[in-house]
Amino acid sequence: MSDSVITISEQTNVDMPWEERPEGCSDIVWRSRRNPVIPRDLLATSNSIFNSAVVPFRDGYAGVFRCDDKRRCMRLHFGKSKDGITWDMEPQPIVFETEDAETGKFEYAYDPRVCWIEDRYYITWCNGYHGPTIAVGYTYDFERCCLLENAFLPYNRNGVLFPRRINGKFAMLSRPSDTGHTKFGDIFYSESPDMIHWGRHRFVMGPVGDGWQSTKIGAGPVPIETEKGWLLIYHGVLNSCNGFVYSTGAALLDLEEPWKVIHRTAPYILSPQKLYECVGDVPNVVFPCAALHDKATGQIAIYYGAADTVTCMAYTRMDLLLDFVRDNSI
Amino acid sequence: MSDSVITISEQTNVDMPWEERPEGCSDIVWRSRRNPVIPRDLLATSNSIFNSAVVPFRDGYAGVFRCDDKRRCMRLHFGKSKDGITWDMEPQPIVFETEDAETGKFEYAYDPRVCWIEDRYYITWCNGYHGPTIAVGYTYDFERCCLLENAFLPYNRNGVLFPRRINGKFAMLSRPSDTGHTKFGDIFYSESPDMIHWGRHRFVMGPVGDGWQSTKIGAGPVPIETEKGWLLIYHGVLNSCNGFVYSTGAALLDLEEPWKVIHRTAPYILSPQKLYECVGDVPNVVFPCAALHDKATGQIAIYYGAADTVTCMAYTRMDLLLDFVRDNSI
Amino acid sequence: MSDSVITISEQTNVDMPWEERPEGCSDIVWRSRRNPVIPRDLLATSNSIFNSAVVPFRDGYAGVFRCDDKRRCMRLHFGKSKDGITWDMEPQPIVFETEDAETGKFEYAYDPRVCWIEDRYYITWCNGYHGPTIAVGYTYDFERCCLLENAFLPYNRNGVLFPRRINGKFAMLSRPSDTGHTKFGDIFYSESPDMIHWGRHRFVMGPVGDGWQSTKIGAGPVPIETEKGWLLIYHGVLNSCNGFVYSTGAALLDLEEPWKVIHRTAPYILSPQKLYECVGDVPNVVFPCAALHDKATGQIAIYYGAADTVTCMAYTRMDLLLDFVRDNSI
Amino acid sequence: MSDSVITISEQTNVDMPWEERPEGCSDIVWRSRRNPVIPRDLLATSNSIFNSAVVPFRDGYAGVFRCDDKRRCMRLHFGKSKDGITWDMEPQPIVFETEDAETGKFEYAYDPRVCWIEDRYYITWCNGYHGPTIAVGYTYDFERCCLLENAFLPYNRNGVLFPRRINGKFAMLSRPSDTGHTKFGDIFYSESPDMIHWGRHRFVMGPVGDGWQSTKIGAGPVPIETEKGWLLIYHGVLNSCNGFVYSTGAALLDLEEPWKVIHRTAPYILSPQKLYECVGDVPNVVFPCAALHDKATGQIAIYYGAADTVTCMAYTRMDLLLDFVRDNSI
Amino acid sequence: MSDSVITISEQTNVDMPWEERPEGCSDIVWRSRRNPVIPRDLLATSNSIFNSAVVPFRDGYAGVFRCDDKRRCMRLHFGKSKDGITWDMEPQPIVFETEDAETGKFEYAYDPRVCWIEDRYYITWCNGYHGPTIAVGYTYDFERCCLLENAFLPYNRNGVLFPRRINGKFAMLSRPSDTGHTKFGDIFYSESPDMIHWGRHRFVMGPVGDGWQSTKIGAGPVPIETEKGWLLIYHGVLNSCNGFVYSTGAALLDLEEPWKVIHRTAPYILSPQKLYECVGDVPNVVFPCAALHDKATGQIAIYYGAADTVTCMAYTRMDLLLDFVRDNSI
Amino acid sequence: MSDSVITISEQTNVDMPWEERPEGCSDIVWRSRRNPVIPRDLLATSNSIFNSAVVPFRDGYAGVFRCDDKRRCMRLHFGKSKDGITWDMEPQPIVFETEDAETGKFEYAYDPRVCWIEDRYYITWCNGYHGPTIAVGYTYDFERCCLLENAFLPYNRNGVLFPRRINGKFAMLSRPSDTGHTKFGDIFYSESPDMIHWGRHRFVMGPVGDGWQSTKIGAGPVPIETEKGWLLIYHGVLNSCNGFVYSTGAALLDLEEPWKVIHRTAPYILSPQKLYECVGDVPNVVFPCAALHDKATGQIAIYYGAADTVTCMAYTRMDLLLDFVRDNSI
Repeated sequence: MSDSVITISEQTNVDMPWEERPEGCSDIVWRSRRNPVIPRDLLATSNSIFNSAVVPFRDGYAGVFRCDDKRRCMRLHFGKSKDGITWDMEPQPIVFETEDAETGKFEYAYDPRVCWIEDRYYITWCNGYHGPTIAVGYTYDFERCCLLENAFLPYNRNGVLFPRRINGKFAMLSRPSDTGHTKFGDIFYSESPDMIHWGRHRFVMGPVGDGWQSTKIGAGPVPIETEKGWLLIYHGVLNSCNGFVYSTGAALLDLEEPWKVIHRTAPYILSPQKLYECVGDVPNVVFPCAALHDKATGQIAIYYGAADTVTCMAYTRMDLLLDFVRDNSI
Repeated sequence: MSDSVITISEQTNVDMPWEERPEGCSDIVWRSRRNPVIPRDLLATSNSIFNSAVVPFRDGYAGVFRCDDKRRCMRLHFGKSKDGITWDMEPQPIVFETEDAETGKFEYAYDPRVCWIEDRYYITWCNGYHGPTIAVGYTYDFERCCLLENAFLPYNRNGVLFPRRINGKFAMLSRPSDTGHTKFGDIFYSESPDMIHWGRHRFVMGPVGDGWQSTKIGAGPVPIETEKGWLLIYHGVLNSCNGFVYSTGAALLDLEEPWKVIHRTAPYILSPQKLYECVGDVPNVVFPCAALHDKATGQIAIYYGAADTVTCMAYTRMDLLLDFVRDNSI
Repeated sequence: MSDSVITISEQTNVDMPWEERPEGCSDIVWRSRRNPVIPRDLLATSNSIFNSAVVPFRDGYAGVFRCDDKRRCMRLHFGKSKDGITWDMEPQPIVFETEDAETGKFEYAYDPRVCWIEDRYYITWCNGYHGPTIAVGYTYDFERCCLLENAFLPYNRNGVLFPRRINGKFAMLSRPSDTGHTKFGDIFYSESPDMIHWGRHRFVMGPVGDGWQSTKIGAGPVPIETEKGWLLIYHGVLNSCNGFVYSTGAALLDLEEPWKVIHRTAPYILSPQKLYECVGDVPNVVFPCAALHDKATGQIAIYYGAADTVTCMAYTRMDLLLDFVRDNSI
Repeated sequence: MSDSVITISEQTNVDMPWEERPEGCSDIVWRSRRNPVIPRDLLATSNSIFNSAVVPFRDGYAGVFRCDDKRRCMRLHFGKSKDGITWDMEPQPIVFETEDAETGKFEYAYDPRVCWIEDRYYITWCNGYHGPTIAVGYTYDFERCCLLENAFLPYNRNGVLFPRRINGKFAMLSRPSDTGHTKFGDIFYSESPDMIHWGRHRFVMGPVGDGWQSTKIGAGPVPIETEKGWLLIYHGVLNSCNGFVYSTGAALLDLEEPWKVIHRTAPYILSPQKLYECVGDVPNVVFPCAALHDKATGQIAIYYGAADTVTCMAYTRMDLLLDFVRDNSI
Repeated sequence: MSDSVITISEQTNVDMPWEERPEGCSDIVWRSRRNPVIPRDLLATSNSIFNSAVVPFRDGYAGVFRCDDKRRCMRLHFGKSKDGITWDMEPQPIVFETEDAETGKFEYAYDPRVCWIEDRYYITWCNGYHGPTIAVGYTYDFERCCLLENAFLPYNRNGVLFPRRINGKFAMLSRPSDTGHTKFGDIFYSESPDMIHWGRHRFVMGPVGDGWQSTKIGAGPVPIETEKGWLLIYHGVLNSCNGFVYSTGAALLDLEEPWKVIHRTAPYILSPQKLYECVGDVPNVVFPCAALHDKATGQIAIYYGAADTVTCMAYTRMDLLLDFVRDNSI
Repeated sequence: MSDSVITISEQTNVDMPWEERPEGCSDIVWRSRRNPVIPRDLLATSNSIFNSAVVPFRDGYAGVFRCDDKRRCMRLHFGKSKDGITWDMEPQPIVFETEDAETGKFEYAYDPRVCWIEDRYYITWCNGYHGPTIAVGYTYDFERCCLLENAFLPYNRNGVLFPRRINGKFAMLSRPSDTGHTKFGDIFYSESPDMIHWGRHRFVMGPVGDGWQSTKIGAGPVPIETEKGWLLIYHGVLNSCNGFVYSTGAALLDLEEPWKVIHRTAPYILSPQKLYECVGDVPNVVFPCAALHDKATGQIAIYYGAADTVTCMAYTRMDLLLDFVRDNSI
């Protein structure tokens, strides 16, 4: 079982962020009443803070945050928090330490995920190296970050690691893309013996139907291991006559062959409906990048970007969600 | 004179939905203070309810509603109401009864209109049959629905019947389209002896100018017969740098040769300006699909979809609107 | 059995155009050694003559020809021939006689087909009426032409009639399109009691695979009735990085329910390979619009446009082609 | 030094519109608490009033306003105001007087700027003459307007005059465009001896980076002369997956060779973040067209259009802004 | 009357290139039997030589030639010839002498025209200065070339001077464009007192119909003055499904108000039909850039580029062409 | 030094295909007089044979050929030849043997390269696995082929191996792409310890300028090792208004760090100029996929596809080419 996600009650004494489902609400995933939990201007220099990754860290939480500055440059910042809600955000972008100057020549960095594997926190994000691709780095302390190689050739986005080796190999989901506002997107699975060289690429799933996930789909938070399979929360995009709409669904992937899809929600579990999700730098976006899971209580707290502007939270329970995924599968 | 529309005070005892024009307001069409009258989540399973058709029915109202579910699949539902404002929505989509299995193979159904002709309520909508086209069905009771043939080959949208035969033939307006987010659109007129075979296609009108109706136009509610001509409320689309904007205008068509346009408003009579019209699944849309008319009082109540998310109402009076159409014609 | 096509040896004494398959050639369809049989400048005013329709007529042949003039305006001309190879082309475009001035307002006319049904020669073509659609006219003598209604709303191309009523109705294939260089295209089947009103639209077949028929397909000559079904020669389009490539295939449709496809060739039977097919106003086009069939000998002579510039001929035999369609079906 | 802008405290006794920076706000440019200062429906016939130009005039202010009417036709109106906040808007569009009928045939007029040079107020705007280009007119009294020639061939937008001759010539900035929603745009500088013939075109600056000014840029208000150079407030556009986002930056141009850029802000100084900037006819637009400057106090009041719907104001101080431009230059 | 064009028999003793119309040919414009007169590899370094300008010069001819090198960089070269057919091409591109370094920073130069006005040969061409625009230079001897200012802001192509002042001003035709393979294009007229500043822009004519000139049009050779008006040979473009087709037509413009079109050919006078016009770097292009006219004999020799690869010639007579323009006007 | 390429005179007794440079020709690369050496219909079932890979094999040559069949399906075939000119082509496509059924699910296979490394012939090609990517296989005998994993995630084309390990790793060039007719394309370098997992991706070079290599570039034949560096023959694409033009250039890459470009030709060394290169299924394409090199004589024979239809040959000498690359570098 993966350690990085399902450890709230085991490793730390801190409380997990949590709000009960409101009275009369039958939604599978419900929003925090404190949304947006991180405002766009938490930093004096930030235009927006969203699509960010939070993990349990020591006696609280740490995270890697997408903070677009007022040039609208996309940068990653470290942040720390006692409760997962109120954040001390590092005002300077992360400096990536690298042995090979070539890998350090990135033009932008966005949409991070963080994943504890074995002995450290791995960070993956969309990296500008002659086009968007997936960078891999790691940190022990959320103060220094070592940059490894880009996992793939351009053009790629939404690289998400699994929290343990599978069949002895590191494993990653990603969404091959093109150079611009890509109008297609499937999720693929890849393996690596060393976090440097990647291969055995397998198709996992692609867009379906005419609805919320008809244009492209991509992995969201680090998959959560359950007895029934890997729980993957993912985003899907509908191409309306007035632009893309990003919603959220969930799938269950086979534990040992995660490119095999067991279930996948036909309906979305979250879609942009609140004003802070519909109005902002990119209207009509909910985009989850992290999830906390308390194995003991089954509580799940999802961090998601709203309208490419602010960071929000939503909640669900593992049993509720697994039942929903099973009962509403395509 | 057509029976289906101008019958509120004649056939039924129920009150027509109505709100007087607010003090100080000089608009020709004014919004309901209760907007949106139908919220997006009136059904537990609905993502949105909009672009829907209402008619007087027995001692109240009935309608066919576009309810997109949480897969974002487009489906039609029956609904009934005592007052035209508060609705009992059927939770299951309409099941179309058909003798020919081929016609029943539709992929989606949206933007319905309902029209009483002679002995029954005809329903037309945009039907996914190897692309969007115009389906025709009918109901006597808003409980069962019989499916006829698609009126036209793909690709077509916004098929709207006239409420009586014209020169002995059924008559329909429609807007030929393409397979996607069509960037062109004229209104055409077609005739049928039998509701199955359609021909004698005539161009009615197309986009004009640089403004609200410069990209495409399509018929809205069933035309209302007046002594001066058919009153057609229609939508027009402007292609801004940030997407389509759907507004509403009105035209007067010749009674016996409805492809001849007598008047057509240069200005819109309604455009997306309220938050519920500007923010939603598709921002900046007002899209009328039905209108009630009380011949005795001249009151007109328009049902329109807002932001492809909710259903709203607006009001006008026949004399006001006819004068406006005449005095503000292109 | 249809009269218009399979009548060479029955109704007339003239010889059908014919050339035997060259030695060593194993192609199912072979080109005339006299290609192009009609040069682009047969008329002093013509830029190109192609995509044209030929039928047996009296003691020879008659046809309707697409002659683009030196404005590059697309016009239809009558032509007559003793042998089907050497043509007397009428220098003036066809004047369409019509009772309703509205239908006569066409902007262009191209890609005709001619079909004998019952008592006259029907002509269908792509007609510019607020966009491309299918016009229907008829002639008794290839001197005067009466214009009926457009069969369909815009936007449509490649309307091809069946040579007899099917289940008591006239029947037509067509390819719904959009306003420009359409990137999609399926063949549909429609019925009419009166050549005016059309309905009962059925999907027949669409593009398949990545090859020659992957972008759009459309009917070619009038289908030829055989004991095994309707033989349909059709065009298919591949979208290369340097433009569309138009090739030719064949299908067998059910005799009484022609929207049911019995066989359909996976390979093309003719593709642009000769210089006169690869070089011209639109490179890489072979586009068949007519076929003569001698029932007694099984000889088939296909008329096709090459590179949107000249008219060519190719030959096959019914037994060869039927076997090929059956043995190389998708 | 230019008279038109830096004259509040010199020529007139009226107070300049002004609001101090709110407590705790560290923004370089801060919004008016009265925003939007001009609502969309200030005129009974107006759909929206935005992207407009204000100058000191006699004992108050005058302006040229873009008032789109309810046809969504783009028209220019005169307006007058005592305080620069509350406006008497002329209900009829400006009638342009011209000696040559040809120049008077404009199809639309939008996004005006006003610039006092020597003896009169020159007006420049985007003029529909076989495509968008830059018209030039002048007024003495904001009651009558004389139309000169279009400065440039189509296609051009955002023509902005300098408030005095430079090296003996009139000078203008503009942004060459294409016919539609242009996806590129650089600022160029041109000279004229007579306001009719323009030449010596020089590239000034273009889009940079991946951020707020990565797609196109254009001049905003008339440049303000300072000892250090011309202060140019300009708009920049980012092309998001859901459309264009218009933000605002500032640059310092060389006094005598204004095509030489001394400084240019890497970050924006204003971006669409308020509801009235993010929601409207074109979401996510702030678009400045005028600025008042009081030389004595250094106060600057910027007029900007919000969401292509309403007119807003924002404030800064000359010293603050010059320091910011210098310290945050690309 | 302009000197530069109509001077063959007056100023020089050399014979003008000429070939009589072939027997049996009724074309208004007929091709040289020596085509292509300049092969693509006349220079060892040239990939192609086309779209070039020839004028009478001393006792023979001189020209400015578009020679794309084997980088496919577009460059201009001087050339000289005794007979106008056989050319000595300068192997090095023209070096433009300029006083202002900024104007010398061009990225490419193509499609030149040469025009004698008053005392020198002016050269105009498409110049890469932050996008395509119209450069102006002059030469006395076809050995040195002085560069003036760009006449217009980007984006423009096909700038063609008139061979004398009109109403005291220099005059130019041009075709405003965008940054890429422009899909629109009208011809405009502009004036200048000094060859530097240009203004009084007038629309001349745009694309018409569905045919050879339906997408864009642009001026070809320097207009030839006749008693009836300026004879303008121009190119027109049709957008086929397989790319642009460039043909040639002719128009007659008013002598004193050349933006007024007296006649304009509905048919083309030359279209790509020969192999060297249909096959090459850009298939299906004939593009005239120069014409010689012998006033005494009425002979006209047209130089045109074929397939963007080679230079060809075609001939006509003034009386023939003027009659044709008059009798075949739109 | 690599064995696969530079072994003609060492390993085999056969003559290498060779033709001397024609008299008077100064081209660096000259065409075979026998072009096209492989016609499109060498197989009865083939539509075209092009973009294919040849290597020395035993006492002659073997190859992997792209043979598009008459469905226009892209397939790979083995072929053998005594002289490298006349080929025995295997009529059936290669059957790929694989242990994992998933990797065997390719939809198409095209543009192969063959590279001898250590003990076997590796084959790489563009493989349809949910979009184009790079497949890797190997053969010992050109009769059976074992399929390994796809080297990369989609979307990729033109994967070309180096003929020996570099710094202990296998090395490959490739060109990341999108799903369609990609309008961008850089060459990247990647490493692998095992031919399965790939990493350490490095940018090598991208398009430059406005000319023949301005849109995209991709590796051609397997690089040839020389003392001065790896000689890479590559294709470059220009996007004309009538489609892509594929030409050929050459570069010299650092021996140990092949992502470092030492030289790269500014001009092309081969461009589509012959009829068989300009006319065919995709006009204006020369596309090299293999090169033979005789170390003793310096002779190089290049195999290239022409017009996506036939296979051609061209020749050069190592010393000539290396000098040219050095002297004509960008």
